[in-house]
Amino acid sequence: MAMSTNRSIAIVGSGAMGGYYGARLASAGFPTHFLLRGDYQAVRERGWTVKSCDGNFAVPADRLHAYRNPTDMPKVDLVVITLKTTSNGELRHLVWPLVGEKTILLTLQNGLGNEDELARHFGAERVVGGVAFVCINRTGPGIIDHISHGLIHIGDFVGGAEASRRVEEIAEDFRSAKIRCQAIPDLLSARWQKLVWNIPFNGLGAVLDMTTDRVLGSDTGRGLVSALMEEVVDGAMGQGLAMPAGIIEKQIGRTPEMGAYASSMQIDRQQGRPLEIEAILGEPMRRANHAGVPTPHLATLYQMAKMVDGERV
Amino acid sequence: MAMSTNRSIAIVGSGAMGGYYGARLASAGFPTHFLLRGDYQAVRERGWTVKSCDGNFAVPADRLHAYRNPTDMPKVDLVVITLKTTSNGELRHLVWPLVGEKTILLTLQNGLGNEDELARHFGAERVVGGVAFVCINRTGPGIIDHISHGLIHIGDFVGGAEASRRVEEIAEDFRSAKIRCQAIPDLLSARWQKLVWNIPFNGLGAVLDMTTDRVLGSDTGRGLVSALMEEVVDGAMGQGLAMPAGIIEKQIGRTPEMGAYASSMQIDRQQGRPLEIEAILGEPMRRANHAGVPTPHLATLYQMAKMVDGERV
Repeated sequence: MAMSTNRSIAIVGSGAMGGYYGARLASAGFPTHFLLRGDYQAVRERGWTVKSCDGNFAVPADRLHAYRNPTDMPKVDLVVITLKTTSNGELRHLVWPLVGEKTILLTLQNGLGNEDELARHFGAERVVGGVAFVCINRTGPGIIDHISHGLIHIGDFVGGAEASRRVEEIAEDFRSAKIRCQAIPDLLSARWQKLVWNIPFNGLGAVLDMTTDRVLGSDTGRGLVSALMEEVVDGAMGQGLAMPAGIIEKQIGRTPEMGAYASSMQIDRQQGRPLEIEAILGEPMRRANHAGVPTPHLATLYQMAKMVDGERV
Repeated sequence: MAMSTNRSIAIVGSGAMGGYYGARLASAGFPTHFLLRGDYQAVRERGWTVKSCDGNFAVPADRLHAYRNPTDMPKVDLVVITLKTTSNGELRHLVWPLVGEKTILLTLQNGLGNEDELARHFGAERVVGGVAFVCINRTGPGIIDHISHGLIHIGDFVGGAEASRRVEEIAEDFRSAKIRCQAIPDLLSARWQKLVWNIPFNGLGAVLDMTTDRVLGSDTGRGLVSALMEEVVDGAMGQGLAMPAGIIEKQIGRTPEMGAYASSMQIDRQQGRPLEIEAILGEPMRRANHAGVPTPHLATLYQMAKMVDGERV
């Protein structure tokens, strides 16, 4: 499949997500610039190796550009941001060298507040957000394991006719790189729909160190998941966002097929990494409360998650 | 010190608490009958050995009576119940052989609902409750380590003039056995005051596997402890119980001097034993809610504790 534009792309935050989507884009021929830390040497020498449920592939080192330092990178047409939200304090510093007059910033990060952060530093008119439904691991330096799914929903932060055309063009480029991608009209609503799942399973998963099957393994667990989901749905609707009917039953119902799934926050806890508490739990809670929707279960979970996170050495 | 009566006593639930207080009573000369499981052989052969902050002592085997089976035991004047509340299903079966016409039942168990359980089976007029402030461990078969404190507040379940005379007599007997003991007019209020501390530190201690110093080690932790304590105080006052002014500050303030203290529920979790969730968390929550007082933080904590408890193998 040929690429539809010759858009130049930078990937900031080249963990599993950035590595996978960036490798797809580079493989399709887009000039792709990776900002790397731990994987720099491996990717510069051997490129990316991707084991994928959609077919394995590799991107040789001469088909991509690897950097250690953002000031060495060119300005690009599109910056894809997959940085962990706990590093958002570095966003401005990492992204500004890449930003030219017409550069678009696409954040695929978790939770809420990332578009706002980018808008604050670089102007809201550049900002596009995406919600990724994908299961990927980084299994070694420059080595990615794409386990399942892969769809991205992308939408403009501000909205409007021109913006939606721009988002549609990005979606086409992504599809030309074999990335399933759909432009959506309401980004914020999509983020909240994902939070309906993420808040209980990331929050309880991290605090209780339980995989999804164990969280749902008792009436009490299912009851608490439901209660948390109801607060999230109420919080979204309290802000005037549309939520599909039956979303709670649907989100709970699709979880057992994931097996003994460890949420990203549970894995972060197990590996002693910072938890994405503010993006996934704190910011949604504050927005719901600001709209007058109480979230007592979420508030307790948020505080307990902060206590767990505060104990990292 | 001479004993003031010749009251015969049975100890049901001879863990650390039952062993310690029973050993004191036997040592003072009260005919004391221990219902034992794991410690039966050791206590029958070598009696109790008590290392105590108030002075070490031992009770030789010929100064006590040890049993494996309640039906082998005599009817007594006073049954002291120190069984774990998670075994309350066995209470009726264990206690009935000891109960004669005038037998008094004194429960020193944790939390709420134990007096009610005894009253249901044996009649409310027999029931006395006690709140123990004591730090004791069982360090081996028949071996007790009394680390600090030891005061018991006891009060009648039903109340009234005759009852309070009876409670005062028990308190005198206990004091004659070198057990610090005070008769109190309002047992339920005393139980709730203890719950103000027990609910946050047992609940969070078990769910997060954190000692008291770690629970209080962050602003978030202190905030969550306060929020839980407020719900407990509101729950008590919502039922018309008196709570001392400044109790929350006092209960938090006295905690740091306990050092890295592991609550009983945290230790139960670490050792894979059932957690006393209903007595310490569930019953107080239900009573507060029944009185119209919402307890959202406690409800979340209760559910998470049940999820943790449900995972014991």
